[in-house]
Amino acid sequence: MSTHFPDISRIAYEGPQSKNPLAFKHYNPDELVEGKTMRDHLRFSIVYWHTMCGQGGDMFGEATAIRPWDAGKTGIEQAKARVPVFFEIAEKLGMPYYAFHDRDVAPHGKTLRESNEYLDTIVALLKEQQQRTGIKLLWGTAQLFVHKRFMNGAATSPNAEVFAFAAAQVKKALEVTHELGGEGYTFWGGREGYMTLWNTDMKRELDHLARFLHMAVDYAKEIGFKGQFYIEPKPKEPTKHQYDSDAAACLNFLREYDLLPHFKLNLETNHATLAGHSMQHEMEVAGAAGALGSLDANTGDLLLGWDTDQFLTDASVATQMMLSALKHGGLTTGGVNFDAKVRRESIDPEDLFFAHIGGMDTFARGLKNAAAIRADGRLGEFVQQRYASWDTGLGASIEQGKETFASLEKLMLEKGEAAPNTSGRQEYLENLVNEFV
Amino acid sequence: MSTHFPDISRIAYEGPQSKNPLAFKHYNPDELVEGKTMRDHLRFSIVYWHTMCGQGGDMFGEATAIRPWDAGKTGIEQAKARVPVFFEIAEKLGMPYYAFHDRDVAPHGKTLRESNEYLDTIVALLKEQQQRTGIKLLWGTAQLFVHKRFMNGAATSPNAEVFAFAAAQVKKALEVTHELGGEGYTFWGGREGYMTLWNTDMKRELDHLARFLHMAVDYAKEIGFKGQFYIEPKPKEPTKHQYDSDAAACLNFLREYDLLPHFKLNLETNHATLAGHSMQHEMEVAGAAGALGSLDANTGDLLLGWDTDQFLTDASVATQMMLSALKHGGLTTGGVNFDAKVRRESIDPEDLFFAHIGGMDTFARGLKNAAAIRADGRLGEFVQQRYASWDTGLGASIEQGKETFASLEKLMLEKGEAAPNTSGRQEYLENLVNEFV
Amino acid sequence: MSTHFPDISRIAYEGPQSKNPLAFKHYNPDELVEGKTMRDHLRFSIVYWHTMCGQGGDMFGEATAIRPWDAGKTGIEQAKARVPVFFEIAEKLGMPYYAFHDRDVAPHGKTLRESNEYLDTIVALLKEQQQRTGIKLLWGTAQLFVHKRFMNGAATSPNAEVFAFAAAQVKKALEVTHELGGEGYTFWGGREGYMTLWNTDMKRELDHLARFLHMAVDYAKEIGFKGQFYIEPKPKEPTKHQYDSDAAACLNFLREYDLLPHFKLNLETNHATLAGHSMQHEMEVAGAAGALGSLDANTGDLLLGWDTDQFLTDASVATQMMLSALKHGGLTTGGVNFDAKVRRESIDPEDLFFAHIGGMDTFARGLKNAAAIRADGRLGEFVQQRYASWDTGLGASIEQGKETFASLEKLMLEKGEAAPNTSGRQEYLENLVNEFV
Amino acid sequence: MSTHFPDISRIAYEGPQSKNPLAFKHYNPDELVEGKTMRDHLRFSIVYWHTMCGQGGDMFGEATAIRPWDAGKTGIEQAKARVPVFFEIAEKLGMPYYAFHDRDVAPHGKTLRESNEYLDTIVALLKEQQQRTGIKLLWGTAQLFVHKRFMNGAATSPNAEVFAFAAAQVKKALEVTHELGGEGYTFWGGREGYMTLWNTDMKRELDHLARFLHMAVDYAKEIGFKGQFYIEPKPKEPTKHQYDSDAAACLNFLREYDLLPHFKLNLETNHATLAGHSMQHEMEVAGAAGALGSLDANTGDLLLGWDTDQFLTDASVATQMMLSALKHGGLTTGGVNFDAKVRRESIDPEDLFFAHIGGMDTFARGLKNAAAIRADGRLGEFVQQRYASWDTGLGASIEQGKETFASLEKLMLEKGEAAPNTSGRQEYLENLVNEFV
Repeated sequence: MSTHFPDISRIAYEGPQSKNPLAFKHYNPDELVEGKTMRDHLRFSIVYWHTMCGQGGDMFGEATAIRPWDAGKTGIEQAKARVPVFFEIAEKLGMPYYAFHDRDVAPHGKTLRESNEYLDTIVALLKEQQQRTGIKLLWGTAQLFVHKRFMNGAATSPNAEVFAFAAAQVKKALEVTHELGGEGYTFWGGREGYMTLWNTDMKRELDHLARFLHMAVDYAKEIGFKGQFYIEPKPKEPTKHQYDSDAAACLNFLREYDLLPHFKLNLETNHATLAGHSMQHEMEVAGAAGALGSLDANTGDLLLGWDTDQFLTDASVATQMMLSALKHGGLTTGGVNFDAKVRRESIDPEDLFFAHIGGMDTFARGLKNAAAIRADGRLGEFVQQRYASWDTGLGASIEQGKETFASLEKLMLEKGEAAPNTSGRQEYLENLVNEFV
Repeated sequence: MSTHFPDISRIAYEGPQSKNPLAFKHYNPDELVEGKTMRDHLRFSIVYWHTMCGQGGDMFGEATAIRPWDAGKTGIEQAKARVPVFFEIAEKLGMPYYAFHDRDVAPHGKTLRESNEYLDTIVALLKEQQQRTGIKLLWGTAQLFVHKRFMNGAATSPNAEVFAFAAAQVKKALEVTHELGGEGYTFWGGREGYMTLWNTDMKRELDHLARFLHMAVDYAKEIGFKGQFYIEPKPKEPTKHQYDSDAAACLNFLREYDLLPHFKLNLETNHATLAGHSMQHEMEVAGAAGALGSLDANTGDLLLGWDTDQFLTDASVATQMMLSALKHGGLTTGGVNFDAKVRRESIDPEDLFFAHIGGMDTFARGLKNAAAIRADGRLGEFVQQRYASWDTGLGASIEQGKETFASLEKLMLEKGEAAPNTSGRQEYLENLVNEFV
Repeated sequence: MSTHFPDISRIAYEGPQSKNPLAFKHYNPDELVEGKTMRDHLRFSIVYWHTMCGQGGDMFGEATAIRPWDAGKTGIEQAKARVPVFFEIAEKLGMPYYAFHDRDVAPHGKTLRESNEYLDTIVALLKEQQQRTGIKLLWGTAQLFVHKRFMNGAATSPNAEVFAFAAAQVKKALEVTHELGGEGYTFWGGREGYMTLWNTDMKRELDHLARFLHMAVDYAKEIGFKGQFYIEPKPKEPTKHQYDSDAAACLNFLREYDLLPHFKLNLETNHATLAGHSMQHEMEVAGAAGALGSLDANTGDLLLGWDTDQFLTDASVATQMMLSALKHGGLTTGGVNFDAKVRRESIDPEDLFFAHIGGMDTFARGLKNAAAIRADGRLGEFVQQRYASWDTGLGASIEQGKETFASLEKLMLEKGEAAPNTSGRQEYLENLVNEFV
Repeated sequence: MSTHFPDISRIAYEGPQSKNPLAFKHYNPDELVEGKTMRDHLRFSIVYWHTMCGQGGDMFGEATAIRPWDAGKTGIEQAKARVPVFFEIAEKLGMPYYAFHDRDVAPHGKTLRESNEYLDTIVALLKEQQQRTGIKLLWGTAQLFVHKRFMNGAATSPNAEVFAFAAAQVKKALEVTHELGGEGYTFWGGREGYMTLWNTDMKRELDHLARFLHMAVDYAKEIGFKGQFYIEPKPKEPTKHQYDSDAAACLNFLREYDLLPHFKLNLETNHATLAGHSMQHEMEVAGAAGALGSLDANTGDLLLGWDTDQFLTDASVATQMMLSALKHGGLTTGGVNFDAKVRRESIDPEDLFFAHIGGMDTFARGLKNAAAIRADGRLGEFVQQRYASWDTGLGASIEQGKETFASLEKLMLEKGEAAPNTSGRQEYLENLVNEFV
């Protein structure tokens, strides 16, 4: 089989001292962490859209990327040519998983039927490559935001036929995800929101979105698809406001419409910060609700106000993320999915490798750091001790529902004042965590 | 009765042409709007904390305000002296309502008992003034964030005795609110959140908060307090993260812990924008959940990242707010509560009047504009027409639950493409609204 | 001559009561304001790029706009077809001016020579239309950010040949601007900045930028172009950081490299807010330096972090802008240039009219409000009085350079304390301004 | 001499493996880096204001800190008691420098004369302690923002007597800084800006500020003070806008008023990010202008919009800062000054130690990382190569001023297109830097 990257062999682990930019310095797939291999903890996934379709265009500039395999090809021919290249990249990187949207692997057809046929053509190739390489599908999804038909939303469009078209598209995407053994299916509502409240009936749109998701749940059951459903929060961009704005907003929606049993969250770092939250916060909110599903692993630039989808290279953030993941039982159906793109100026195919290697190494560092912090025990112990007053006596009695405002008032009138607080020790804890980063 | 503002008579309506800075130019209390007086629509409320306790201090500077009535007084004497001044201001402004925290009307005592006694002293004076003036209590609340005891939260403190103290304090605050005929009771969780996730057990803290609120619901029932409970969203400041971060986060919490039947939201403009939302958005989210309760009427500065609590003088925003209020049935138990303060450099007592007059006039303009937009009908009609495809045929069938992914796919395979979208007409609608602002 | 908008006649002034969305409600071109027509004050300008080239694409979606005149055409044929449509729109709107980039009126050729030929072809058509309609060129500019050649900057590229190419392109753009009687020439350094400091030599890049601008000044003199040069601040987007980040940064650069005598600023509302400033602030900074040149009239959404380039419909902001403009002597060489685009969902050609009408009316309101505030005199008088202590006595002595630290210490040791401050009266002033908005 | 911290001995270096929270893990003062000790590179400085005066109060809460040495003392007695405690902390931490404001070491008196006397009393104690410990004064400054007299600014006050009072105060502060052998003097214009443009004459205020600084320069010369003057940028807070908003704005001001020869910049991390810039950016801007002076070493929280003044614990940021410092010749007169405070919940005296140890270790890591990156050479080499086209041929000819628009056009018409760009390699470089962090 011909290779598009003859100079790049399968990326190997060479350890932290290596100066080889095409080697892992931290990610050693078979190394055990808390009794499980790093590979099984991290469940790395590469995305089709940025890796194969990203061309470096932005709102002020045309494509810049050098992609020899695309040269002179368009439409379904281009789509077919990309499949083996994608798997070659994934293989060289040792990615166990990948993810895709229907319309990034295959082109839009003139009709729904034609689009479906294009998709079927490519799905066959994907399946072949999955079998050849052992790489698996983390999740599939339908792209419901690029085509102008979706300009006012898909399930929340004021145009009922757009809802119907989206339903048909998701039906097909569910089928092919099932066909490819996908372990999950994700909804990112890129235009499920509004540009202006002046023309919007928010409540009616949310009712439609809930109905849409219930249809998806029903259809999955019908075809026997047992993968995990995810909903992906993002507050804004492309629209002024997306309904799935952050973890709490998604959970509120899922609870209101009785969808919480069927969905977990696919959290993205860059989306968290656009919503004004740290990724650790979003993971804790999801974890507390038992809805921590999968991670779209990237980063934004906190001084910029849009979705930069950069590769995360900050080991502190990765450490926070992996601590939160380990605390809530790890990524089971989900993974660390690199929804990230090379910068517009990183035009060479090699840059795709540098970028993913950096991202993978960063999460590997995060995982090892997190495990070391847990093994050390001081951080966990500190938090437990901080809440010790709730484990016995008054606190336990409150937790057990034995107290009322009257009983507590009686107590405090007697005591006059609460016991003094202890220091929150934030700086001490930051230093402690820093011992491991 | 002696007056502290001999040069200021009761503020009267003089119409838009008036150049008298101590007159209303838009707020004409008895004027009918949609069949109800402006007074009854707007239910203006003045707050004790900023009006009487605000001294102009900030993180980088000492007090600046000139407040002759405070001169030489401290503690309970100062507190007593402030009551008639507050009501004199409220009366001159024609405020039908006011709001207070327990610890801003009366000082902290050395013990809970002493604090309660201080509070009782002042409550008697408030009651007297309410009877004299006819001014009513919109809502009461307990201040659970200033004292160092609450530095790690009140109901969410890791210190169980702090929970107990807060419970005792809210019990008393509920009692005095009831005693004063308060029409509501508000929870703002100023420190119910975290400074760092490193020392925080978020789930346990949220469980405690829910238990606390259930105790409040139970106690209100016990004493026959029928006022509306409110929870007030704010995302951050003073803490890094407050759990009640925005309307959606509050609703999620209330749903999770079966508290939604007992609570509505008290939304604040400045808190909305700190959360990255427009106030109109927050009101629509609350309204869609049937939880639009009351308004803390102020504004932030969108180029600053903290709670500036300025008086709103932007009639566009007020128009959006009143449109949303009218759409969701108006303010019934709630009001337009001026949780706003004069700038640190606005040091004169007169500035308190200029500020409230400006705020009241702005909401009066907003109300009239909103009513005019509704009477005109074009905006409402546009929105209704935009969703017309959902009123009959396919849309109605989907809404009625008669369609599935399979039936919709069948339809769209036949049609091939959805009907074209119509223009969102944002600029047209902005112009239309601007005709009235 | 055939029309593309048979249903739209020349937009006329119908007054504030009009409900005709295709009429001006405030812009009455011949109406006198401070002794000059509104037309001459506002010097409205329509931009070629958004109006003719904007297709509704965004980072997550394809084009949406319906533009019948483009149908089936590409390249130079499309470019030729657009010219009369543009002028028809401008004429119907009564725009006295327009602005363009070289590469938005004419396509990129395969070589510089071919690009120049394309440009010459279109310039001939523009000239013809200018003569037919009397519409004039406010300013021209070169597009140095779309082509991949400019991905690392133009004058600040690490690639010296890119500098040379940009120089050649600006030379030509200056020539055609001169040929078309342009009253100015603008530099917006869309990629003159960096994506990461890791690969950047900031000082060397700034030296190159200064040299480039000096070459432009020299060449303008050589060909007798007497139009005003502008530099346009924007802090970020598309790059992480642009050197011309705000008015102060531009002035610092212009001072450092002796360019201030040759340049004024072309300020854009949306760029101001992206830099964390109000537009009024940027105008005052430029005005204080004698460098207030021209206005790119639009607005961002302060809750979004990118350049939305919306049409300004907020009369308060327009009032602030026109007050500042009038204070600093008005727009002389510059104008109110609508660097603004219809929303992606506003797909109809009619939306272009609604949008510009709204923008023009908003600035007309701003101008009238500003003139009324000046005629009223209270605001100006207040500010003057606030600084009265500087007009005589101690203040005058300090301003005249007669005082030293020693003389002032002597004075203050005698007095012990400074005279008390007077209230800043912010709320009073906001109310006062609101009388006119 | 009695100790306030009997359990804390002088903090020693124990290396990265140490689990002692009261030891340095990275800061080894005598260790050589690039031929100079870490002590001499970093020139650490501890600040009086946060360390001794910070009590944990915030806008929503009272003081929380436990400070036994303050107990029962007020005014000048409290001020005297704090001096030895401060030096004990500094000594245990091994701080070579400190910094103070006049009014944080000594209280405000009722008159200028009384304030001066208080200050003299404390300065004598400071001098004594300096001699005892060998700790030196990095810089002094006058606090011109806390007292209500300065509510509208100091040098930019509309009240000329406030200018005079500020002048007298700075005169005295310069004298005591000189007396104490201070190596610099800093101006932070905490209220030199505006709250609203409605009441502000920006140009007149800036003229006054410039005159004030010239008086300072003159007076320093008069008394023979040879320390470095610094101006400290901050964009906002406490005012809406401060004139010294960022490095570029300061440089613009200094250039306009011929002050640049006399001033360097004192850059603060948290102020940089409030202005929308990375600290590395601000350092590069200052460095390019030859104005990189001193560092106020802290961090903000990029998800919060106010000045949190946290201790920096992010080694990546410290690495960027030290790389920039080394590149521009190191900190010569300036230092790494911990303008940082413990969190409000970190109430124990010990927290002051944890916090400073973490900050010092972080900068020590940053210094070592930066030196390692420089020794490695790959990063520097990459940047140099990236601009190689400017070193010879066309680029050199442009830099030497030999080219014009005409000569460059001629060249590019011949070539048709510029040489292709090379990849910016951002991800590769981020990985490379990460090898050292």
